[in-house]
Amino acid sequence: MPNLEKQFRPPAVPAVRVDGYWGKWQDSICNATAGILLDRCVEAGMLDAIDVRKPSPGVVIPIQPWGGTTQMFWDSDLAKSIETIAYALYRKPDATLEARADEIIDMYERLQDDNGYLNAWFQRVQPDRRWTNLRDHHELYCAGHLMEAAVAYYQATGKRKLLDIMCRFADHMITVFGHGEGQLPGYCGHQEIELALVKLARVTGEKKYLDLSKYFIDERGQEPNFFDAEAVRDGRPLADYIQKNNEYSQSHQPVRDQKKVVGHAVRAMYMYSGMADLATEYNDDALTSALETLWDDVTTKQMYVTGGIGPSASNEGFTDYYDLPNETAYAETCASVALVFWASRMLGRGPNRRFADIMEQALYNGALTGLSLDGKTFFYDNPLESTGKHHRWKWHHCPCCPPNIARLVASIGSYMYAVADDEVAVHLYGQNTARLTVAGKDIELRQQTSYPWDGAVSIEVDVAEPQAFAMSLRIPEWAIGASLSVNGEAVDVSGCLKDGYARLERTWQKGDRILLDLPMSLRPQYANPKVRQDAGRVALMRGPLVYCAEEVDNDADLNAYVVPPSVSEAGTEQIEALGGAIAVDIEVAKEDIDGWGAALYRSRPAARHAARLRLVPYHLWDNRDPGAMLVWLQAGDTQANGG
Amino acid sequence: MPNLEKQFRPPAVPAVRVDGYWGKWQDSICNATAGILLDRCVEAGMLDAIDVRKPSPGVVIPIQPWGGTTQMFWDSDLAKSIETIAYALYRKPDATLEARADEIIDMYERLQDDNGYLNAWFQRVQPDRRWTNLRDHHELYCAGHLMEAAVAYYQATGKRKLLDIMCRFADHMITVFGHGEGQLPGYCGHQEIELALVKLARVTGEKKYLDLSKYFIDERGQEPNFFDAEAVRDGRPLADYIQKNNEYSQSHQPVRDQKKVVGHAVRAMYMYSGMADLATEYNDDALTSALETLWDDVTTKQMYVTGGIGPSASNEGFTDYYDLPNETAYAETCASVALVFWASRMLGRGPNRRFADIMEQALYNGALTGLSLDGKTFFYDNPLESTGKHHRWKWHHCPCCPPNIARLVASIGSYMYAVADDEVAVHLYGQNTARLTVAGKDIELRQQTSYPWDGAVSIEVDVAEPQAFAMSLRIPEWAIGASLSVNGEAVDVSGCLKDGYARLERTWQKGDRILLDLPMSLRPQYANPKVRQDAGRVALMRGPLVYCAEEVDNDADLNAYVVPPSVSEAGTEQIEALGGAIAVDIEVAKEDIDGWGAALYRSRPAARHAARLRLVPYHLWDNRDPGAMLVWLQAGDTQANGG
Repeated sequence: MPNLEKQFRPPAVPAVRVDGYWGKWQDSICNATAGILLDRCVEAGMLDAIDVRKPSPGVVIPIQPWGGTTQMFWDSDLAKSIETIAYALYRKPDATLEARADEIIDMYERLQDDNGYLNAWFQRVQPDRRWTNLRDHHELYCAGHLMEAAVAYYQATGKRKLLDIMCRFADHMITVFGHGEGQLPGYCGHQEIELALVKLARVTGEKKYLDLSKYFIDERGQEPNFFDAEAVRDGRPLADYIQKNNEYSQSHQPVRDQKKVVGHAVRAMYMYSGMADLATEYNDDALTSALETLWDDVTTKQMYVTGGIGPSASNEGFTDYYDLPNETAYAETCASVALVFWASRMLGRGPNRRFADIMEQALYNGALTGLSLDGKTFFYDNPLESTGKHHRWKWHHCPCCPPNIARLVASIGSYMYAVADDEVAVHLYGQNTARLTVAGKDIELRQQTSYPWDGAVSIEVDVAEPQAFAMSLRIPEWAIGASLSVNGEAVDVSGCLKDGYARLERTWQKGDRILLDLPMSLRPQYANPKVRQDAGRVALMRGPLVYCAEEVDNDADLNAYVVPPSVSEAGTEQIEALGGAIAVDIEVAKEDIDGWGAALYRSRPAARHAARLRLVPYHLWDNRDPGAMLVWLQAGDTQANGG
Repeated sequence: MPNLEKQFRPPAVPAVRVDGYWGKWQDSICNATAGILLDRCVEAGMLDAIDVRKPSPGVVIPIQPWGGTTQMFWDSDLAKSIETIAYALYRKPDATLEARADEIIDMYERLQDDNGYLNAWFQRVQPDRRWTNLRDHHELYCAGHLMEAAVAYYQATGKRKLLDIMCRFADHMITVFGHGEGQLPGYCGHQEIELALVKLARVTGEKKYLDLSKYFIDERGQEPNFFDAEAVRDGRPLADYIQKNNEYSQSHQPVRDQKKVVGHAVRAMYMYSGMADLATEYNDDALTSALETLWDDVTTKQMYVTGGIGPSASNEGFTDYYDLPNETAYAETCASVALVFWASRMLGRGPNRRFADIMEQALYNGALTGLSLDGKTFFYDNPLESTGKHHRWKWHHCPCCPPNIARLVASIGSYMYAVADDEVAVHLYGQNTARLTVAGKDIELRQQTSYPWDGAVSIEVDVAEPQAFAMSLRIPEWAIGASLSVNGEAVDVSGCLKDGYARLERTWQKGDRILLDLPMSLRPQYANPKVRQDAGRVALMRGPLVYCAEEVDNDADLNAYVVPPSVSEAGTEQIEALGGAIAVDIEVAKEDIDGWGAALYRSRPAARHAARLRLVPYHLWDNRDPGAMLVWLQAGDTQANGG
């Protein structure tokens, strides 16, 4: 029996105009990042790689341990850059940037084979290796990113060229993959195509692309394992596989049987995102059920308090349960971006703060940290502790993160809402104006707020004529004591709470005003005692934001500060150098370093004296003078003692 | 003006017969390790490498990041194995083992060039590269280890062959190195020859070997830098040097100007050992002063509580001050062995517990941990925390540690005492019988004790006729309340304390009996607050031993245990599976994991309930069922709370 719940889909990016907090970030993307991404791609030689009028660049940048080259996925970097540019063009038309994107799209048009195949590496450098190593070679992954770019660029500019190119490639894929004579019963080692095909289907209305996506998902991990058979066929001994086994690409089991989140973090998140889209589109309860198990697995056993995931650099992914080292955290920016993708898609079957709260946590703390305030430099890995040597890069030899965080920020409006037939869900708060279509009619919602600095949110409803629909407003789990009113009349939040959302069913009038107040106070967060790296430590959050201590505001020895069981705010300050962020000062104890003496070890603990510690939002660290940083602070008794 | 203090030198290894605690370890060496070392060297192909009757094996095991091969230092592995066998033969004659050693020595005799040169790699594999890359190629390092083996084997068996071989090579070196016409003004990238030449000088009485050692020490780091000039001459661009600069080999400055302990840990320790020997032999105050600065630098800013040093795997050495990660600690067994070497040599200018206490700490905790109780398996790196995946190796591709800890254990008697003209110092306690020569007369000292399990030590003095000399007994800094008597008459320890040693000056009679009692109770150790990795944590020591918690005795989540400010012993037990070691149980709190709930993070800390924690000596961990291990435990309030 099909699940008949409503299908919630995000609005197209242009439907939501963001201002305020997110508006500033988007200005950085428009004014800096979008152009920088293209510049860096050009400097790396990516245009030479795709331009058939130029000689093939050959193998340029080999990656040692893997044996591949970065060029194998250059198409994806160009694609994510075009996607970012597309979103930037909504906000701020830029003829130069648009012309540069058009030029790249023209190059791809010239590059595409008659049969629709498109991949710069396997057309220009290793044409004989096409479709021979799906496990390692990123062919469908690159195609997926080009599809996402195509959809975004089409929605931004109305230009169909890239969209048509990618439809032709998708049509070609339909002939290549499957169980028919001469077809490949395969799928991509790096998931991405699955969610991209859903976007393509939604914008074109073509169900065949949904079906291809479903094929890739259903096929993955079936026995006999495609990757193992392919490797044997291709003369690659399984014993030599650097990633050891197919858990790395989540293809060790059929996806519906998978219970544990394993392997490469971004691959996992992209796959779950595609699965969640398909669960929504096909009302597939088996997929949803598998996803809920995996969701709990990662969020209750494998996620940093920042929403960072994948602690290990060696596999860019997951290790053991509760293994969350702070100083060496990999917690790749892309992985948190992808966790946001997944979380937002888990909302496809209805609003539920179980997913939306984590979406917000990962967005602000895990993902956004990857971008400097000026939009010009980027974190790849995101440790929760630094002695002062970790700083944002101008670029990276594997430049996946910069365009990934950029495209997320530039499209953030589409994550704020979701619409079913006659329902609206408000997932994220922030100053914006949304033009949505509910039950076939256009409505406008205007959020006024300085969120995330303050929890007061006003939402004004604009309808052409009185219209009945349900609006669900997320009440974050942390917002103890949240209050709500409509047109000045208090609403009992607990009385209308469904899955963590205040559900307002009414006939809305033009000018209706919702006032929501989410209390923002600093709150301690303790980790499950099984997380050995956080034992005896406390992190502090304020609203959706993880806070940290930075050397620029405090003494360098941040581990000498001790936070008491009951945290008291001694003051807050708006920091202009951090874009108006709210810094919080708290009363703590500090271990006496000067009075310790020369010994490295002694039998008495350090004396403690009263001190003040300044905390700033983690995602804004390393935007001022470089120095040490710490999220998980010592928790303990702050009583001064004689040492 | 020369310093006229007395020169203390260690007794030869055969002069001290050890029993009790150390006797068991030596039995393991005799019954297992000594033979295993040779077996593994043979399996690796080391005999084929040195046997001129066989074809050259060529390049067998390249080491990737360095570009060298393990074979370049195979001579040193054979040498340390022969040295271990020599010490084992003192304790337990073994004709088979002796014959195997003789056979290897015969091979070296056949291998040696007419001019005295000896190095299997640069005679058999790359003869054209001899003396061309002192910085990286370990030529003098290998020679040094063969000299140490030669001295040990001569003392053990009376056989001079290897000693004569190495004297010929040393004589050749004297012609090769220096500032004369056609000579090399160089020294070795891996120090070792310096201390070995002192041993050679002491056993042969030849001052020329001391002078060559002094030349290597004095020359090191002088400008223009020899290694830089050599690299340019040899066509090796300095920019390509994987270790970046000469700090790696402590050749960045003249040794007397060095203030900070940097670079590769074993190289540093071997160099300081050689320097300390020369400071003793030449009464060189400038060297002693430089060494004291370096001693304080490493012991007050860069040493684990275990006496482990060199936290980083990447340079096998030092990083920043106070950077002492526990779970990823490199703390190579060889480095602590070498710290024992250095500490023992710092005692050459007189007993001082500043050095001897650390010698004992590094010996028991940093070095001895590298050897399993049965003498058959070995730790290379020595983390202070493990989740259960760190275990002893049967062998290592760079097998420096197994013979290093083996030769130290097998020769431990010579570290227990030192003798100047008419003085004896007792540096270490343990059941043993020492035959020493004091003021030209043979005396015997018999220690009766179950140290380190119990602090009661009886020393019986045996002299042929009444003899006046000073005996200095170390009173460890941790032994608060130590008591001392001679022939039942109490001695006021503080009244006769000099540099941490109780100095007994008297005319000793046959049968005089000293009773020393060193209180052994569990004591907390806190780290300087600048050590971020130990913030909020406490380690526990008992006598010279660091204790740890192992999963086999406790719950697996060792970080959930919380040790109160005041530690109370709830009981002790002798563990047969750990060779009779004393385990200590303490009253602690334990965070409630079962009652925590499903969330990964929450705003209340875990509830705590009373619990008991069993601690065992760190150096004996991983000798029973494998599992997690932890040295630095959570310190805090143990009051039960409601969570």
